[in-house]
Amino acid sequence: MTDVADLTLEEKARIVFGADFWTTMGIPDKGVESAMLTDGPHGLRKQVAGNDHLGINESVPATAFPTAAATGSSWNPALLSRMGAALARECRVEDVDVLLGPGVNMKRSPLGGRNFEYFAEDPLLAGELGAAWINGIQALGVGASVKHFAVNNQETDRMRVSAEVDDRTLREIYLPAFERVVKKSQPATVMCSYNRINGVRASENHWLLTEVLREEWGYEGYVVSDWGATWNPVRALQAGLDLTMPSTGEAGPATVVAAVKDGSLDEAVLDQAVQRILDVHDRLRADRTTEVEFDVDAHHELAREVAADSAVLLQNEGGLLPLPQEGGTLAVLGPFATAPRYQGAGSSHVVPTRLDEPLAAIAETTGRDVVHAPAFRLDGEADADLLAVAVDAARSADTVVLMLGLPDAVESEGWDREHMDLPAVQLEVLAAVAAVNPRVVVVLEHGAVVSLEDVVGKAPAILDMWLAGQAGGSALAQILFGLAEPGGRLAETVPWKLAHTPAHVNWPGGDKVVRHGERIYIGYRWYDATDRDVAFPFGHGLSYTSFEHVLEGVDLPDAGVAAATVRVRVINTGERQGTDVVQIYVGDPVAAVDRPVRELRAFAKVSLAPGESTVVALELDDRAFAYWGADGWIVEPGEYTIEVGRSSRDIVATATLTLDVPPLVPTLDIDSNLGDWAAHPVGAKVLEDFGAKSRESGPSLMDDPEMAGMMLQMPMIKVADFVAPGHGHETVEGMLAELSSRS
Amino acid sequence: MTDVADLTLEEKARIVFGADFWTTMGIPDKGVESAMLTDGPHGLRKQVAGNDHLGINESVPATAFPTAAATGSSWNPALLSRMGAALARECRVEDVDVLLGPGVNMKRSPLGGRNFEYFAEDPLLAGELGAAWINGIQALGVGASVKHFAVNNQETDRMRVSAEVDDRTLREIYLPAFERVVKKSQPATVMCSYNRINGVRASENHWLLTEVLREEWGYEGYVVSDWGATWNPVRALQAGLDLTMPSTGEAGPATVVAAVKDGSLDEAVLDQAVQRILDVHDRLRADRTTEVEFDVDAHHELAREVAADSAVLLQNEGGLLPLPQEGGTLAVLGPFATAPRYQGAGSSHVVPTRLDEPLAAIAETTGRDVVHAPAFRLDGEADADLLAVAVDAARSADTVVLMLGLPDAVESEGWDREHMDLPAVQLEVLAAVAAVNPRVVVVLEHGAVVSLEDVVGKAPAILDMWLAGQAGGSALAQILFGLAEPGGRLAETVPWKLAHTPAHVNWPGGDKVVRHGERIYIGYRWYDATDRDVAFPFGHGLSYTSFEHVLEGVDLPDAGVAAATVRVRVINTGERQGTDVVQIYVGDPVAAVDRPVRELRAFAKVSLAPGESTVVALELDDRAFAYWGADGWIVEPGEYTIEVGRSSRDIVATATLTLDVPPLVPTLDIDSNLGDWAAHPVGAKVLEDFGAKSRESGPSLMDDPEMAGMMLQMPMIKVADFVAPGHGHETVEGMLAELSSRS
Repeated sequence: MTDVADLTLEEKARIVFGADFWTTMGIPDKGVESAMLTDGPHGLRKQVAGNDHLGINESVPATAFPTAAATGSSWNPALLSRMGAALARECRVEDVDVLLGPGVNMKRSPLGGRNFEYFAEDPLLAGELGAAWINGIQALGVGASVKHFAVNNQETDRMRVSAEVDDRTLREIYLPAFERVVKKSQPATVMCSYNRINGVRASENHWLLTEVLREEWGYEGYVVSDWGATWNPVRALQAGLDLTMPSTGEAGPATVVAAVKDGSLDEAVLDQAVQRILDVHDRLRADRTTEVEFDVDAHHELAREVAADSAVLLQNEGGLLPLPQEGGTLAVLGPFATAPRYQGAGSSHVVPTRLDEPLAAIAETTGRDVVHAPAFRLDGEADADLLAVAVDAARSADTVVLMLGLPDAVESEGWDREHMDLPAVQLEVLAAVAAVNPRVVVVLEHGAVVSLEDVVGKAPAILDMWLAGQAGGSALAQILFGLAEPGGRLAETVPWKLAHTPAHVNWPGGDKVVRHGERIYIGYRWYDATDRDVAFPFGHGLSYTSFEHVLEGVDLPDAGVAAATVRVRVINTGERQGTDVVQIYVGDPVAAVDRPVRELRAFAKVSLAPGESTVVALELDDRAFAYWGADGWIVEPGEYTIEVGRSSRDIVATATLTLDVPPLVPTLDIDSNLGDWAAHPVGAKVLEDFGAKSRESGPSLMDDPEMAGMMLQMPMIKVADFVAPGHGHETVEGMLAELSSRS
Repeated sequence: MTDVADLTLEEKARIVFGADFWTTMGIPDKGVESAMLTDGPHGLRKQVAGNDHLGINESVPATAFPTAAATGSSWNPALLSRMGAALARECRVEDVDVLLGPGVNMKRSPLGGRNFEYFAEDPLLAGELGAAWINGIQALGVGASVKHFAVNNQETDRMRVSAEVDDRTLREIYLPAFERVVKKSQPATVMCSYNRINGVRASENHWLLTEVLREEWGYEGYVVSDWGATWNPVRALQAGLDLTMPSTGEAGPATVVAAVKDGSLDEAVLDQAVQRILDVHDRLRADRTTEVEFDVDAHHELAREVAADSAVLLQNEGGLLPLPQEGGTLAVLGPFATAPRYQGAGSSHVVPTRLDEPLAAIAETTGRDVVHAPAFRLDGEADADLLAVAVDAARSADTVVLMLGLPDAVESEGWDREHMDLPAVQLEVLAAVAAVNPRVVVVLEHGAVVSLEDVVGKAPAILDMWLAGQAGGSALAQILFGLAEPGGRLAETVPWKLAHTPAHVNWPGGDKVVRHGERIYIGYRWYDATDRDVAFPFGHGLSYTSFEHVLEGVDLPDAGVAAATVRVRVINTGERQGTDVVQIYVGDPVAAVDRPVRELRAFAKVSLAPGESTVVALELDDRAFAYWGADGWIVEPGEYTIEVGRSSRDIVATATLTLDVPPLVPTLDIDSNLGDWAAHPVGAKVLEDFGAKSRESGPSLMDDPEMAGMMLQMPMIKVADFVAPGHGHETVEGMLAELSSRS
């Protein structure tokens, strides 16, 4: 353990900057060890040839697990913990201290270039999955870095843009996944985002990094900049950023030293940052109590399990899937069959330990004849020959498995897509194939949502693999033939068209500003609020077996407490073992503010044998009922709806719950409206006296029925001014004094 | 003419406040005459019994013309000018100096309590109609007061709420109707609104009242507060508000005198306000050169003409309308048949000179037997007896005219509606009546849009009269039997559901803030941008005859000028005289910013005999192509679409126009992105040299294809910093120097 007091100012100033692209500064004389932070929430990306200063060298082979786009659909925190532990073992073997993940930002638009690195359009789901992943990795002494804090929802102008978001939207939508992660898993580090929030850079945002993160949420680790997100290291330290990455050469430390010397930076602020960095690294090392090894095969198996549990069976007309293992020829079409798209592009790109090719895996899994044709080009160019061969193959096959998706060149960190369509050549192949063979299974590989408008009517079965990692090919084969279940449920809505999406008229902003005009209404909250039909709703996903959900009861604790337990019996009514997700949505139909129709407030994944049943108890705490008001979280007394959903649009049971908590009594002040006075228990009486008095001097505005409606919205001071011109202020001061004397 | 220099400080301070509720301060000794300002854009509301201080006394009889909700649908500026002139005559006879109207705010939501006083959801239409009305009234020496400046789009908390609107949205949507009115008609007064705009009260908003209104637009009249909109008279004067209404007793003048004396208010500011007020009143009096009289009958006739020209025939399946004057019994149902809803509630309420009852007018117009039943109660209570009698009447009638609408109690100034449905009892009557008689004509009377989801399938004909004024009943009778044409076209979209409307998730705000999250996308701009089906689109309205529109050509002036003339031939291809509206929409499919699919940029109303045809030339100026950028209006070179529409969703001809204007070359600065450099004609070369140089020292980020896409969005300073840590700023300074030396 190093004592910060033993370090010189110059040494401390070095510790708060990277030593190179991936490591922090070690000062061996003083017992400060360097630490390595490296990329990849779905796999380790440690560069082979030392740390070049650009971070673009080849990395060591590591298990490429499914990306967050896939694992978000797993709704399976326990599995994410196991995946975290596996990643930790790989990090330990490679001496990596901190793995830069998970990403828990909200998917605001399907166009977001980094959507594949994020879990969901819902903060509860993203937060639960993120926390589980972190608890898995950190249990073995490897740190996580939850990112990108906060409101990184687009890549367009990401290093300059200001996300303009109102407080309520921040608190209810963009911050709670981070809050949940911090409170449930204390990540070793939090990575601040590139963007500004309401004008202030995340890296210099004292409100965000200190007041909210540490003072409100109790965060104990350190804050690291996204690579290059620090602009002014002194302002950043003052705001609560501890470590700037990567190295800035001599410049950064020199600036900090100078600022301490000239008094513009309090040395205590620097000391605190250094202490946090050293403490976290020390604690991680202390947690490495057990030996670990990296079992490449076991991790590959785990990657396959995660891929299957994350795959979403969107549509399965006539029970086309699973396919019988014996039968006629199978045509497996599309270039992804031999070169799958299985991870995203950008900082998280991993060199896999091996790669399961879908075509080979399918051929190994079935006894059926399997033929393959590439069908289309990945560069988007039309190719009539490829198309003709594919159609021929489809025509003579019993069933077609057509693999569609987004090529690498179409989605990546660093920039946003401009539309959400599948490439036109792929849709042409689908149309042509469907015209000759109605038994088409479309398999999708992609990081962000695509429009399925031209797919749903043409393919009876649609299986969404997302970016399924290195074992995605074999997971696909197992699902196709029923050796594994598609365990995923959508973590984001699939809308029909881009024009229907929540941020559409505010995307991606301009002049360095993006406005969150849709406020709290992203994802299913938007589609519900705007009464919009969608292709596939949030939470949707079919199973190979069937389930029944019975709402057994909603238990309330003592009066005065906002909490409940929802008990749901889940019965596997089908013929196969299977998993299902119980989704609990809460609504507040009568509230002082506009609220979403329903919000996901609890979920649980269950696995049941045929005929088996179990009762799941899901806990709702006060936040399940709360909205963010001017002074903080508010839970109103009264009725709430509790919905049990198979998806956000397939509500199978509903109950009403009445919370017996104290009502909020609004404060009356000089600016209050007449309506506020009328609604206040004591204020109403003071108002009545005022009305009686005003009647003495002539006709009263308050007795005119037409005026009465208008006046409820009028500040009392203005009402009083109409009654006695020039005396409004004094009159209302008197009423407030009267109110105070009676309260 | 009074010289301000002759007035004492105390006198001047009195002149900038009302003397009572409706008049300004006269100072007879000094030749300052009092002026009367009184309510009502659709009719004069001058109180009978002197000016009580509350403004709620009975007013003198005056012609109740159709409200703006109706006249907005006329698309007929010439007719609005005639209506303005008629109002001026009534004002002159009653010695009123300024009539408080027109209201040209945008209809942002169907729920807006004051929608009936506003023209349209489109600024061009509202501005043209408002300017014509003002030119009509002011030609006779009576002043107008265009209101409510600005962004008064809701009544909820209207005196405290801050409308949070970005600059572009203000400039393209909420301000241009005012701008057009100011530039085309120089209204005697502009009335500031109650609300705040981006935090600053309209009455204290220097940017709005001085920089935009006077300095940019060249406004020459005075600004009056909405009644009670002034909170701090000194700040208001400094911002550019001239007259505070109504009287504040001694308080206001005393505050102003004290402020001048203690130096916190420059007396020159007060002098200027006084001068503006006196100048306007003097000018108005000087313009009263001709004698006028108020011909009650002629004004009633004009009110009928306006009502008919504003009535919108929404649906007319099987040509049910016009009804033959001879034939079977006509059942005229609903309480509006004997007690029409013809004007709005609130400050604009007029005592009509007479009132045409629809039932009586129908009976007088036709030779058919006419029966009547009230059918439903206006208080919304179900009444089975009323219903049964109405159904019986419908069953035995040849045709049913069912009058539906919003009772007075359901919409008013001062508060907003909570839904857009017709009362349930009315829909029940419609359903029951339609079940026994398919020949149902629904007539609508209401101030703001209602959902017609339960109407369109049940009534083959729907005629929307809006609030049609005192002669609405006879106008209706004339339209029903084809003695007049329904001349109206929708000035606002009729959506299917409230949930589909642009402001839905931002309405009506809370905590004294309402966010314009939908930005520029209100009205048809929203429904087009979000690909939403609507009940009846903006601009829609059927005629009793048929028309063909032929786009004859689009003429461009010289290169370098952004303007065009669109020539459209309109042919009456039917059997009757009729009027139609040519609507020209402009779109800019490829632009540096997001733009609406189409925007109304010109229109013209034509009246043609059967077989007659005419060519209308519609002028487009630079603003028809412009958007508001960071530094002002921008017209980009390149292609624009010119659409000729019968409505915003019925485009009958399209042309493409190429504007040959200079492109905008963006300025490069220290914050510019690599992409900005790459797109700049000279900057690209400087960037190339930088790349070549960076390659000398090792692998270049810029040569990595995966990184290249990411880097376009990266500030150049950050790119340079990755290449040479700590030297980014200095490198880009060098590049800027190089750029400047080469430019």
